[in-house]
Amino acid sequence: MIPVFIQPDKSTWGTLLMRPALEQVELSAKVQEIMEAVRAQGEEAVINYTEQFDQVKLRSIRVTTDQIKAAADELTPALKTAMQIAKTNIEVFHQTQWQKTEKLETMPGVWCWRKSVGIDKVGIYIPGGTAPLFSTVLMLGVPAQLAGCKEVILCTPPNTEGNINPAILYAASLVGIEKIFSVGGVQAIAAMTYGTSSVPKVYKIFGPGNQYVTAAKQFAQQQGIAIDMPAGPSEVCVYADDTCESSFVAADLLSQAEHGVDSQVLLVASNEELVKKIQKEIDQQLSHLPRKKMAEEALKNSQAIVINTPEIAIELINEYAPEHLILAIDKAAWWAEKITNAGSVFIGNYSPESVGDYASGTNHTLPTNGYAKAYSGVSVDSFVKKITFQQLTSNGLQLLGPTVIEMAEAENLQAHSNAVAVRLQSLKK
Amino acid sequence: MIPVFIQPDKSTWGTLLMRPALEQVELSAKVQEIMEAVRAQGEEAVINYTEQFDQVKLRSIRVTTDQIKAAADELTPALKTAMQIAKTNIEVFHQTQWQKTEKLETMPGVWCWRKSVGIDKVGIYIPGGTAPLFSTVLMLGVPAQLAGCKEVILCTPPNTEGNINPAILYAASLVGIEKIFSVGGVQAIAAMTYGTSSVPKVYKIFGPGNQYVTAAKQFAQQQGIAIDMPAGPSEVCVYADDTCESSFVAADLLSQAEHGVDSQVLLVASNEELVKKIQKEIDQQLSHLPRKKMAEEALKNSQAIVINTPEIAIELINEYAPEHLILAIDKAAWWAEKITNAGSVFIGNYSPESVGDYASGTNHTLPTNGYAKAYSGVSVDSFVKKITFQQLTSNGLQLLGPTVIEMAEAENLQAHSNAVAVRLQSLKK
Repeated sequence: MIPVFIQPDKSTWGTLLMRPALEQVELSAKVQEIMEAVRAQGEEAVINYTEQFDQVKLRSIRVTTDQIKAAADELTPALKTAMQIAKTNIEVFHQTQWQKTEKLETMPGVWCWRKSVGIDKVGIYIPGGTAPLFSTVLMLGVPAQLAGCKEVILCTPPNTEGNINPAILYAASLVGIEKIFSVGGVQAIAAMTYGTSSVPKVYKIFGPGNQYVTAAKQFAQQQGIAIDMPAGPSEVCVYADDTCESSFVAADLLSQAEHGVDSQVLLVASNEELVKKIQKEIDQQLSHLPRKKMAEEALKNSQAIVINTPEIAIELINEYAPEHLILAIDKAAWWAEKITNAGSVFIGNYSPESVGDYASGTNHTLPTNGYAKAYSGVSVDSFVKKITFQQLTSNGLQLLGPTVIEMAEAENLQAHSNAVAVRLQSLKK
Repeated sequence: MIPVFIQPDKSTWGTLLMRPALEQVELSAKVQEIMEAVRAQGEEAVINYTEQFDQVKLRSIRVTTDQIKAAADELTPALKTAMQIAKTNIEVFHQTQWQKTEKLETMPGVWCWRKSVGIDKVGIYIPGGTAPLFSTVLMLGVPAQLAGCKEVILCTPPNTEGNINPAILYAASLVGIEKIFSVGGVQAIAAMTYGTSSVPKVYKIFGPGNQYVTAAKQFAQQQGIAIDMPAGPSEVCVYADDTCESSFVAADLLSQAEHGVDSQVLLVASNEELVKKIQKEIDQQLSHLPRKKMAEEALKNSQAIVINTPEIAIELINEYAPEHLILAIDKAAWWAEKITNAGSVFIGNYSPESVGDYASGTNHTLPTNGYAKAYSGVSVDSFVKKITFQQLTSNGLQLLGPTVIEMAEAENLQAHSNAVAVRLQSLKK
């Protein structure tokens, strides 16, 4: 049963919406030890840790071109077609994110512009485990390809036979990733941070992972490697009123809950009767789920909040800043305009989170844990740097120079002023 | 004298281009202590630390509207005009960075879009000291205003009389910042991280500072507050050939060197004679500088590298990834196209770094320390989140649904598949 809170006073929102604190402190010693070992011993350490954690002794961690090619034969045509459709939609949507260079004359003779340039070397981490997250390969690989990143590498742990799930290899080949390494966990993040004899050092690391991987990415960030965004358990907020289909809402809540016991589910409903109806649907649907136990646990940590005024409900949602927000309410598109803090918003009864998780075109790597207040989801932006350029004509400098001199001297930076003055003087001659 | 390296072998580049390591570890205990004290005791702790570090006992840290208004009278008309011109140019350039919402139908009935929304609450930190960095107020305040951030606050330390430099207050009023607090150092970052009775808690913190402020921002980041970018000493790389004016290059190098002894200056020159000519100019110009000693120290830690092949020089520059890059070479605009790692690029003999530092329109908050390989300078992007939205029609879901079901089941996520299936089933009825 999801605990229910009726019309909670605003003063209680802070506590009510608080995410469970994540324990990370004890991990850091172990994580640091592995990071340091890979930095010092390189490939050898990577292979040893793989033996220790993944129970397989690899000769080489690089997946061969033949292995990548062979993966396609192991998948059904239906799955391959689905992946191709998803890839195309992701591509079409992410293409619109590319910002063209626009040269601007801010004053006569003063030209300024900004150019997007793909980050040269990026690393993608894909966790192992029961769910082979090939969809994440598409979500990170497509924007990397559109951004024009020169080197895109992928690390993912092998199974005990030393193999990678063929769907992951096939997805990688769809997005043009050729350098794939059978390495997971902290040792994978370490290999991408420091480089080994086979794994190139990268400038930015992307991708999900357990708390060890998260801690390793934080460690890498302190070493000057950029990361996609801070991590936290996945979460959905569904805002429903009487126009919703309770079976749809129940299915959406369960699709989040099946991610793991620490998944966050928040139901905001316009009345208490509706919560009961949805809870009943949850109970029915839950019984058929293979991941029933996990989902049940996650639901216990979740909550339903009844708020009968839409304005206040929206305010609460913006305060929570959910990773995913489903608006199953009357005039959903209109209310969507009022959302200021969310990773991705799903509007109306026919827009379940799953479509965005896989195939509509939007990215599924999104800010969790309230980070949507300041962070965006992954996009082409995440894979480029935007470099500014400027070029002044001699006339431009003569026009703007006195302004610069005035300001530099007021900041007591005489040499800054001189850099303009020597030029203006030479132009007087 | 700047140490000179002639045609260094590529194998030595790594060592040659290495930035000096920054000592930060010992700071963290003190920084943590102040952060915790402000979290626990709020405003009282802020006032006590201000007394301790800034030697002034304040009754209230909020700068009054009257104080802000009065600041304008303390500045010369020339400085005010200069600041207005700079503000306008920054505004004109940053306006082009705003990405409009574009609704896209990735498949019939599958609508996706992305919308930029200003981060609700942002904090700007401006250091005190000898140089009152009012230019940074414009560089951060203008994009915050364009982004539509609802609450923009500014913290800057008071002098021993408890006052703020009027140029900082005037710049703040130009960009519409009304909440200004007389608080500096770690206690300012702590106040913006946790909030106090007068200072609002913010979601993202911007601005430069000494190593204590940098450490405090890192600490804030670990608490879930976003920050503009990792910090490091300012740096310039000038690439010059015989078409340059040696007095201009010398002035540009000095304008960087006067920032502080830890400033980084890298001269890449096409031949050794040119280095000598520039060194001679440096010696001459240096004697007139008020910050002579600081600049001399900075130059000792810097280097000149002679490379006679432009392609290789550009390769070295991209490996160094300078914060500022000045191209004082033949066909500078053509070579600028080859730059892939830099914060901001200044093209030709009439584009000194100072124009970008103050008034051309580009931002001066840029990635140092090689971070330009993965990070961009501050822009309107830095003050917004980009939220994705999607809305499917029932036809759209019927079209895309089977793809989602196929992929979700291959990832063993049955409930994700169900969320689509329940909807498709209801549409069959």
